[in-house]
Amino acid sequence: MFKEGDYILIVYGDKRFLKRLSKGFSLNVKDAVLKFEDVVGKEEGSKVGDFYLFRPTVEEIILYGFKRKTQIIYPKDAFYIAYTLGLDKSKRVLEFGTGSGALTTVLSLLGGEVWTFEASENFYKLALSNWEAFGLCKEVKHFNMDFMQAELEEEFFDAAFVDVREPWHYLEKLHKVLKKGARCGFLLPTTNQVSTLLKNLQGLFSDVTVLEILHRYYKTNPDRLRPEDRMVAHTGYLIFCRKIT
Amino acid sequence: MFKEGDYILIVYGDKRFLKRLSKGFSLNVKDAVLKFEDVVGKEEGSKVGDFYLFRPTVEEIILYGFKRKTQIIYPKDAFYIAYTLGLDKSKRVLEFGTGSGALTTVLSLLGGEVWTFEASENFYKLALSNWEAFGLCKEVKHFNMDFMQAELEEEFFDAAFVDVREPWHYLEKLHKVLKKGARCGFLLPTTNQVSTLLKNLQGLFSDVTVLEILHRYYKTNPDRLRPEDRMVAHTGYLIFCRKIT
Amino acid sequence: MFKEGDYILIVYGDKRFLKRLSKGFSLNVKDAVLKFEDVVGKEEGSKVGDFYLFRPTVEEIILYGFKRKTQIIYPKDAFYIAYTLGLDKSKRVLEFGTGSGALTTVLSLLGGEVWTFEASENFYKLALSNWEAFGLCKEVKHFNMDFMQAELEEEFFDAAFVDVREPWHYLEKLHKVLKKGARCGFLLPTTNQVSTLLKNLQGLFSDVTVLEILHRYYKTNPDRLRPEDRMVAHTGYLIFCRKIT
Amino acid sequence: MFKEGDYILIVYGDKRFLKRLSKGFSLNVKDAVLKFEDVVGKEEGSKVGDFYLFRPTVEEIILYGFKRKTQIIYPKDAFYIAYTLGLDKSKRVLEFGTGSGALTTVLSLLGGEVWTFEASENFYKLALSNWEAFGLCKEVKHFNMDFMQAELEEEFFDAAFVDVREPWHYLEKLHKVLKKGARCGFLLPTTNQVSTLLKNLQGLFSDVTVLEILHRYYKTNPDRLRPEDRMVAHTGYLIFCRKIT
Repeated sequence: MFKEGDYILIVYGDKRFLKRLSKGFSLNVKDAVLKFEDVVGKEEGSKVGDFYLFRPTVEEIILYGFKRKTQIIYPKDAFYIAYTLGLDKSKRVLEFGTGSGALTTVLSLLGGEVWTFEASENFYKLALSNWEAFGLCKEVKHFNMDFMQAELEEEFFDAAFVDVREPWHYLEKLHKVLKKGARCGFLLPTTNQVSTLLKNLQGLFSDVTVLEILHRYYKTNPDRLRPEDRMVAHTGYLIFCRKIT
Repeated sequence: MFKEGDYILIVYGDKRFLKRLSKGFSLNVKDAVLKFEDVVGKEEGSKVGDFYLFRPTVEEIILYGFKRKTQIIYPKDAFYIAYTLGLDKSKRVLEFGTGSGALTTVLSLLGGEVWTFEASENFYKLALSNWEAFGLCKEVKHFNMDFMQAELEEEFFDAAFVDVREPWHYLEKLHKVLKKGARCGFLLPTTNQVSTLLKNLQGLFSDVTVLEILHRYYKTNPDRLRPEDRMVAHTGYLIFCRKIT
Repeated sequence: MFKEGDYILIVYGDKRFLKRLSKGFSLNVKDAVLKFEDVVGKEEGSKVGDFYLFRPTVEEIILYGFKRKTQIIYPKDAFYIAYTLGLDKSKRVLEFGTGSGALTTVLSLLGGEVWTFEASENFYKLALSNWEAFGLCKEVKHFNMDFMQAELEEEFFDAAFVDVREPWHYLEKLHKVLKKGARCGFLLPTTNQVSTLLKNLQGLFSDVTVLEILHRYYKTNPDRLRPEDRMVAHTGYLIFCRKIT
Repeated sequence: MFKEGDYILIVYGDKRFLKRLSKGFSLNVKDAVLKFEDVVGKEEGSKVGDFYLFRPTVEEIILYGFKRKTQIIYPKDAFYIAYTLGLDKSKRVLEFGTGSGALTTVLSLLGGEVWTFEASENFYKLALSNWEAFGLCKEVKHFNMDFMQAELEEEFFDAAFVDVREPWHYLEKLHKVLKKGARCGFLLPTTNQVSTLLKNLQGLFSDVTVLEILHRYYKTNPDRLRPEDRMVAHTGYLIFCRKIT
C-alpha cells in the first residue's frame, strides 16, 4: 500500500515515471492527471484511470531516479559486471570512480563488502545523495579520495571494477591490492582507450575478454510483433581480466 | 592454493577449460601437457608453462561446468533477469521449470528465498547434480513437481521467472501466487511464442517489455582491435511484466 | 560547377541538407548563412564558410530528397535487394507496390527493364513526382494499377520484389508471371507477417532466406573512435526465395 | 534449360552448392546423389529427388564460386559500396587492390567504367581466373600494378574504393586522380586502422562516415520463427568520404 514518501513507478502506455509521493503531488500526461489522493493507500499493481502504479526495481531507480552529471554505467552493463566479477556475499570488491553510484548500488546487492573511491567531491556528494534518496548502499564503504592516495593492504580485494578515463595509470597499484587470480573489470567508451588498456594489462593481468552488450527492445503488440525503430547502439566496451603473478 | 578436489579454470591462449583437480588429472592441449602435480599447491593466477590457473566464477561454472540436456538460460540472460526482477535478500522468488539449474544458481546469489519447480524427473536430477558438484543452491527449495500441482499460498512470491514451452497455460495460477505488482519474466526462443504469450498476458499483467540481449566479443590484440568473426545471434526473447489487480 | 536548378548536398558539421539551387535560395544553420550567390558557379567539394558543397548520390536523394507518405524502403535494404535479385542490364524485373519510388530508383540503375505497379493513385503520383524532380527512372514502365488487374504474359519476369501488406494474396499470380527459377523478394515489418508469408510460399517457392540488415555508424573523431549513441534498430525483414515448378 | 558447362546452384535443405555441369558430374549429400544425367536438360527451379536446381546470382557466385586467398569483400558490403559511391553507367570508378575480384564484379554491374589495380601478381591472376570462369568483368580495365606506379590523368575518376592494408600512404595521389567532390570508400578490419585513416583524411577529404553492416539471418520454419543461433559478427569497417578542394 503506497504511503506518503514512497517512490512510485507510474506506467502510462509506454511511458514510465518515477515519482516520490508527497503532499501536493500531481502528474499530468496528455489530458490525464494523477494526484496524491489518487495514489495514497492504493495497492501495488492498481490502475487509476490509465495509470498503473508499481514499486520500482533497482534498475528503474537507476534509470529514472538517479541524478547524474555524466554518463552512468547502465544497468544492462552493471548487472553483467556484478556477476561476471564472481561476486557473492563472501567477497570484498573495490570500485573506482564511484561516479553517480549506479554500479556501486548493483555491486552492493550481490557482493559482501563494497569499497568505492571517488576523487571528485562533486560526484562523491552526488552518489551519496542518490543512495540516500532511495535508501541504498547503506553498508558500502565510500571514500572521497583518489584511489592512488588510499592506503590499502596488499591482496585485500577479491575483485575490482574501474571506471576512470585513463585506467592504465592505476594498474600497478590495482594489481597490488587484488588477491591472486582476482577478477577485474573496466568500462571504456572508445576503441582508442581499449587499445591502450590492453597494451598496459600485459604482464600484470591475463585471461582478457573485451565485449559490448546490446539490448534490442520490441513493440509489444502481439499481432504486429517487431523491434522498436531505434535502439541504444553504444554505452561502452567492457574489459575483464584476472591478476597473474 | 589449489588442492585436490578443487575446480580449476585453466586458460591456454584463448581456450578455457573447467576441470576438477583429482589424482591422475592430466590436460593435453596441442603439444602442451598439464598434470595433477603441476597444479596442486599452486596459487591462483599462477602460470605453468603456457597454462594460467584460476578459480572459476559462477558464469564460468555454468558455461563450462554444468551438464545440460537442452538449451540452458545463458549467463548473459540470467544475470539480467535476476536484477530486473528486482531481487534482493528480502525477496522470495518463484522459478519453473528448473531445467539444468543455471538460472536458479544466479537467482539464489541475489535473491533471499528461491523456490523452483521442475516437472521432469530427468531435469530435476540433472539440476541437483549440477548444484551438488559445485556446492551451489544449498538454500534453494526445489520440487520435482509440475507447478500446476503445487499447493501454494496466494500472494506468496515477490517475483517469478517462467521457462517452459507454453507459459500461457500457467498464467492464472501464476497471477494468484504473486504479490500485487510483482515482477514476472519469461524466456522464449521463437517469435510465435512471444506473440501468443503477449496476447494471454492481457488483463492479468501489464508494464510489458520484450527484449533480446546480444553480446559481441572482441579480439584482444591491442594493435589490431576488432570484433570476433562470429557471435551468438540468438538465445531467446526475454519478456517482463507486472501483476495487475 | 553548380548552376541554378541543380540539387546540392550541403554538409555542415555532421548535418546534411539536400537543396535545390534556385534564386533567393538561403540556408541558415545556427549563426551561419549560405546564399544563392555563395553557391552558384562553385565547384563540387568547395568550402564556403563551414559549408561543404557536393552533388548528392542516389542514396542521399532517396534519404533527404524524396517525399514520402509512409515508410520507404531504405537504401541499406534497397541496395541489397537489387543485387541479391540477380539483376543486370539483361534482366526484366517486376515491382509492386511502387510506394514512394525509392526501390524502383535503385532497381532501375542495376536492372535492364523495370515494371512497377501501384494501386493507390496517391502513391503513384508521389513516385512520379519524386522521379521527375531528380530526373530518375525515365525508362521505368509504371502503372497505376493493382498487380492483380494487370494482364501479363506467363514467365515474363526474371525477378520480382513485393512490398505490400499482405503479399500472400498475390503469390499464385506472381508465380505465373515469373520465369522458372526466378528470384523473388519481400519486405515485411512484423514477425507475424513473415510467418504467414513463409507458410504460403510452400509449394510455389523454395530456397527461402529471411534476414535483417543493421547499419551501425561511428563517430569520426580519430582519437575517440566509438559507435554513435543510437542507431536504427529495425526497418523490416527481408525474405528472398525462388520459383519452383 | 541446363546444359553442359553451365554453373548450377544446387539447394538441398539449407545447404547450397555451386557446381559446374560437366560430364561425370556427381554430388553426394548424405545418402542422396545427383548426377550429370539428372541435371542436363532440366529447367531452372526443377526438383530432382530433394535437390532444387537454379542459376546462381552474382552474390552466390562470389560466395560459393570465387576462389580466394584472403578475406574477400563480402557481397553485403560490396552491394552497399557500389551504390553509396554514387555509381551509374555514366561514371568511371577506380579500385585498388583488386584482391580476388569480388568488389570489382559488383562495381562493374552498376558503374560505367571500372579501373582496378593489383600490385600482387598472385592476386591479379586469381581475380582474372575468377572472372573468366564465370564470364564476368569483361569490360573492366585491370592492371597488375601498384596504384602508386600508375600514370593517370588528374581529376579522372568519379569515385574510388580502396582495399589495402595501409590506405593512408595513397591519399595524396588518390586525391589528385579524383574529380572534385568525388566519393571515396575504404574497407578496414581493425579500429586502429580506422583511427589512422581518419587522421590522414583531414584536409583532403570531408563528409566522412564510418559504419559496419550486420546481417542477421532467421530460420524459416513459419511456426517457429527465430534468428539463426550464430551470425557473422564482423567483416570490416566501411569508411566513406568526399574529395574537398
